[in-house]
Amino acid sequence: MEAVTRMPRSLERLFDPRSVAVIGASQDFASISGQPLLHLKNHGYRGAIYPVNPRYTEVAGLPCYPSVAALPAVPDLALVLISAARVPDALRRCGERGIPFALVVSSGFAETGGEGVRLQQELVEIARRYDVGVVGPNCQGMMNVAGGMYAGFGAAFQIPALRAGPVSLVTQSGGFGYAVVSLAEEAGVGFRHVVCTGNEAGISTLEFVSHFIEDPHTQLVAGYVEGLKDARHLIRVGERALAANKPILLWKVGDSEPGRRAAVSHTANLGGPAELYRAAFRQCGVLEVHDVQDLSDLVCVFLYGKQPRGRGVAIVTLSGGAGVVTADQCVAFELEVPALSAASEQRLTEIVPAFGSARNPVDVTGNIFNDPAMLREALRVVADDERVDSLIVITALVQGKMAAELAREIADLDRATAKPVVVCWSARNELAAEAYVLLDERRIPRFKTPLRACRALAGLTDFAEARRRHAARAGERVRRIESRHAREQLAATGGILGEHAAKRLLAAYGIPVTREELVQTREQAVASARRIGFPIALKVCSADIPHKTEAGAVRLALANEAEVGAAYDEVLASAYRFDPRARIDGVLVQEMVTGAIEAIAGVVNDALFGPAVMFGLGGVFAEVLRDVSFRLCPVRRGEACDMIRGVRAYPVLAGAHGKAPADLGALEEALERLSALALDLEPSVAEVDVNPLFVFPKGGGVKAGDALIRTRAA
Amino acid sequence: MEAVTRMPRSLERLFDPRSVAVIGASQDFASISGQPLLHLKNHGYRGAIYPVNPRYTEVAGLPCYPSVAALPAVPDLALVLISAARVPDALRRCGERGIPFALVVSSGFAETGGEGVRLQQELVEIARRYDVGVVGPNCQGMMNVAGGMYAGFGAAFQIPALRAGPVSLVTQSGGFGYAVVSLAEEAGVGFRHVVCTGNEAGISTLEFVSHFIEDPHTQLVAGYVEGLKDARHLIRVGERALAANKPILLWKVGDSEPGRRAAVSHTANLGGPAELYRAAFRQCGVLEVHDVQDLSDLVCVFLYGKQPRGRGVAIVTLSGGAGVVTADQCVAFELEVPALSAASEQRLTEIVPAFGSARNPVDVTGNIFNDPAMLREALRVVADDERVDSLIVITALVQGKMAAELAREIADLDRATAKPVVVCWSARNELAAEAYVLLDERRIPRFKTPLRACRALAGLTDFAEARRRHAARAGERVRRIESRHAREQLAATGGILGEHAAKRLLAAYGIPVTREELVQTREQAVASARRIGFPIALKVCSADIPHKTEAGAVRLALANEAEVGAAYDEVLASAYRFDPRARIDGVLVQEMVTGAIEAIAGVVNDALFGPAVMFGLGGVFAEVLRDVSFRLCPVRRGEACDMIRGVRAYPVLAGAHGKAPADLGALEEALERLSALALDLEPSVAEVDVNPLFVFPKGGGVKAGDALIRTRAA
Repeated sequence: MEAVTRMPRSLERLFDPRSVAVIGASQDFASISGQPLLHLKNHGYRGAIYPVNPRYTEVAGLPCYPSVAALPAVPDLALVLISAARVPDALRRCGERGIPFALVVSSGFAETGGEGVRLQQELVEIARRYDVGVVGPNCQGMMNVAGGMYAGFGAAFQIPALRAGPVSLVTQSGGFGYAVVSLAEEAGVGFRHVVCTGNEAGISTLEFVSHFIEDPHTQLVAGYVEGLKDARHLIRVGERALAANKPILLWKVGDSEPGRRAAVSHTANLGGPAELYRAAFRQCGVLEVHDVQDLSDLVCVFLYGKQPRGRGVAIVTLSGGAGVVTADQCVAFELEVPALSAASEQRLTEIVPAFGSARNPVDVTGNIFNDPAMLREALRVVADDERVDSLIVITALVQGKMAAELAREIADLDRATAKPVVVCWSARNELAAEAYVLLDERRIPRFKTPLRACRALAGLTDFAEARRRHAARAGERVRRIESRHAREQLAATGGILGEHAAKRLLAAYGIPVTREELVQTREQAVASARRIGFPIALKVCSADIPHKTEAGAVRLALANEAEVGAAYDEVLASAYRFDPRARIDGVLVQEMVTGAIEAIAGVVNDALFGPAVMFGLGGVFAEVLRDVSFRLCPVRRGEACDMIRGVRAYPVLAGAHGKAPADLGALEEALERLSALALDLEPSVAEVDVNPLFVFPKGGGVKAGDALIRTRAA
Repeated sequence: MEAVTRMPRSLERLFDPRSVAVIGASQDFASISGQPLLHLKNHGYRGAIYPVNPRYTEVAGLPCYPSVAALPAVPDLALVLISAARVPDALRRCGERGIPFALVVSSGFAETGGEGVRLQQELVEIARRYDVGVVGPNCQGMMNVAGGMYAGFGAAFQIPALRAGPVSLVTQSGGFGYAVVSLAEEAGVGFRHVVCTGNEAGISTLEFVSHFIEDPHTQLVAGYVEGLKDARHLIRVGERALAANKPILLWKVGDSEPGRRAAVSHTANLGGPAELYRAAFRQCGVLEVHDVQDLSDLVCVFLYGKQPRGRGVAIVTLSGGAGVVTADQCVAFELEVPALSAASEQRLTEIVPAFGSARNPVDVTGNIFNDPAMLREALRVVADDERVDSLIVITALVQGKMAAELAREIADLDRATAKPVVVCWSARNELAAEAYVLLDERRIPRFKTPLRACRALAGLTDFAEARRRHAARAGERVRRIESRHAREQLAATGGILGEHAAKRLLAAYGIPVTREELVQTREQAVASARRIGFPIALKVCSADIPHKTEAGAVRLALANEAEVGAAYDEVLASAYRFDPRARIDGVLVQEMVTGAIEAIAGVVNDALFGPAVMFGLGGVFAEVLRDVSFRLCPVRRGEACDMIRGVRAYPVLAGAHGKAPADLGALEEALERLSALALDLEPSVAEVDVNPLFVFPKGGGVKAGDALIRTRAA
């Protein structure tokens, strides 16, 4: 009975400990075991600090204790700085003393392999037995910036006064994570909590993210992630963030093959497949960042508070060129630059000079210098247009007095409208100081270049859209289907289900399949063909012959009884020629399908994420172009709809070039049902492939043409 | 006889005038007509300045002249600041006086439409008649930074001391272009010449680019481009830049629909199609930028001087996490992160600690603090590896003394190897000042984040590769085919060439077509089918029925003479039912093609770029996924090869999933021949569509299955 059943741990005391023990505190304050105590003292940590080291009686002016047992009180947090081999014992003593949290800085665990893996497993067990919340091992440390609680080592801990703020960050890499903190802080980001998770023997990245979402003083959650060991909770955590209106900005790495290689060797995490991470991010509104600049720009735009109702952006510019650049970049970030209403364009024609533009992007021109009120009027017209969800105002290099005047106009507009107003202003700080201070006081986001303005606004818009999707989803039911028979059948199957068995299983979850019968004789084949109706396909059914066509074990378009009879003998002969020892279940007599689009659908039951549904068009689309989309289960109707529209080849289904549109409703339902199947069979199913999934024109439904199911036991 | 035949104008005197007349100089120095004279004086322009204005005798302490005729000498440059209506007269007087260059700041020309268009045309004619090199109109001005020659107005002209340097920039937008100059200069870029081209009534953007390539003091050329009026010279200019080893960095806008709309209304340029710009950039190594940061980062990496031999990057990092990030981003920018040789990995295993990584990305870990020599050894091993073409060294937040030591190691390595070494160093400027100064003195490029390091290195690598491609191309002959008969035939055709005629034209340029005969009777059809061999296809041939299948005017897979005879009557009947007045040329008796991949190829003869060749796979690939590639003519063998590999569906041709690879050699030759056709027929051809172009397995060649040619007269 090692595992103790407990409530999810509150991490409040970890970030705000009343006292900290420093186990292995050193008097060499440049060393890794010397730095943490010094940083705690220097950054003004107000709780008690207890150095623990039998070699000293005093460290940095503080009394030093020979052991954890000798401490005068039970600290909330123990920093563990000793060599790996001695960590399990120290952790046990922490547990015995009732210390709730331990941050293990020491390296030499799973990241080194071999003995280190065993040592880490020991940590896990001790932590469980004594219910100690472990951060690390192999961890650079953590910060509570406003609380002056800097528990760790390295260059970032030496920065004298980091700006405190509403961003909490969790990182799986100490070196890189703290570099991001240092750079982002320089760019104006204020941090609340920062924590490095190291090898995650105890508290995971997602647990920290969850804590930050609950934390009332955190407004944005940021993270550097190589792989999530509890990835299956990602969607739930992300949905809580949507409900709490706290964006999660993740720097997810390990996509590239060499990157993945390094991710595995660097942490002891399993890297989940990139496609499932992307699917999960899309499903729960996680925003990805790829540089410090986009991180800090997103923080800026989110702290503004406003969020747009839709993707339509109006651009109002003093420079025509900047308007063109901005329109291009809006479109590149999948924002829309809609035409304004005829009434708005008419009003703008009266306001804007002839050499400007009354259309979106609206170019008010440098004439603003002669007539600053023009900007006010133009902005009002644009902000009142129903097609506009947010505004980008571009003021080029305007500086000095005129800059301050324009800033006031923009601030007035911002107060008057609920729509987000983002400013692109390129003047140097010293030349437009008054204007910049005014905008910054109002938290109106401003950026020096169009790319940055558009990228930030796109992030804001994506998050707002994810929140709307999430709210809509709350009203959508999850389709659940239970089939005890299917569960038992699959659990009993120790391998692969071939076409016929797999399709019967699909049918049990309401997924239509081609009409077919499994027969054992030539006479049965002919009789069956008569029942199903010509033309007919014959296929040999054998788990030993997965690629039937290559084995010559398929005949198509058989027009009459004579052809069926002859083909029956041929396919069996071919199959035995191909593999004389093949165990053959019979011959499948199947209707021929015409007039359908061939799609491919399936399920993967991922070790990290759990079951997910896949969809794409058949043949080269899926196999060569990798044009498929994934969603984690449960897949509700709205998500099924979204994933179908998410493949590049979607126009083929929608009815490109005057062809009939496909039955999208039936396709959505089939994907929902695949999700229900995957959830019901989760313990035993590893993989489902429906290929082809025939999609008929609207009203015609779908039909699984062939299928294959691999069980976990396989 | 208006147009004067002349040599390409040297622009040296424009950027370095010995004297400047300021026509319309104002005493209101805040106004657009007052600023330029003040800027010339304030920035230390050393030539003579002649204000011209009949209302004053003195401006800013300089004698003011009543007219151009009254000037004491002939200036090299006239700045024209008067109202649009008076500009033609002033330009004529400049011409009469023999002034070689005029920069027209005034607005109110083509950008306003109507009368402005006429006025601009007048400027063009006067400029031609008197051989005046006109910059603008509607132009914010130009700068020779080192020469203190600031001829223009606006905030950028008021910056006291712009850094002089080796970057020359041409911009079609004054407001945006000068914002880029201001921001880039702040980021460390030094400029040589900057010019705004405005409406380009005279000197074009490409003429300025050409001048900068020839200019010995320019090392990099930058540009903001909405559309090039002389786009057909782009490739030639780009190739000169490759030969001169001077990268062209272009910010090309107007891609998005709303962007395009604005580009047309903003300048008076025609926007060429985005695809042809991209094709041209690829063909001649132009690098695109999308933000000021990538522009300034590229400048930094190019001024370094080294260029890599290939795309293989070795990453050496102190932080495992940063290594993963960097590997991901290398791959995102299409750089490679190859495995090192076994020997290198073995050597590194001896150098790097166990919790690091001896594989690429090589993680030397923070252990470097205990053993700085380790970095030196690791770097040498990596730099000597033949699979490595360039190195990214990541030093995270290392600061102070250790930073200086690492910088010295990096500088030593840089001296010892010909391979580029790019540094990613995130420490704050004040904390690693000594290290940064050392690297900067050696011009070793350093960036604060992995994204910036990878993006810059990718630009350097792309340019080096374009130079190698260009050098290889010099040895490739351009296939030229002349067919006087085809030229005459096409020139005489006032419309569209249908299948049979178009394919005979293709055949004249050596492009294989399906075996086929045009017949006029049922008996001829049967006889023809016998000659060609069964199965046979029949198609009605009529320019009035371009979509034959829809009209029921096609029958496929006719197996024998009886079927051909019957089908002959049917297709004709269907055709007449479809359009009773259709003029029918006959019925095409054609071989049936099987076992080929259907591709699509073609020619567009663009108004701006001239002829270009297109290639893609057939059906949805081209039509729905827009998965096609373009190259401007002439298309040499290497480019044909490159454009085939440039479509996403290329694996289908290369032999995906065990299928036979297609005859790529024959396909390349067909594209070369299409290019030869396009060049030979350039005056009369508008469009060629070969759809399908059958591509047979290797050795089987290609065959045009259907074709259509539109003439310019159509």
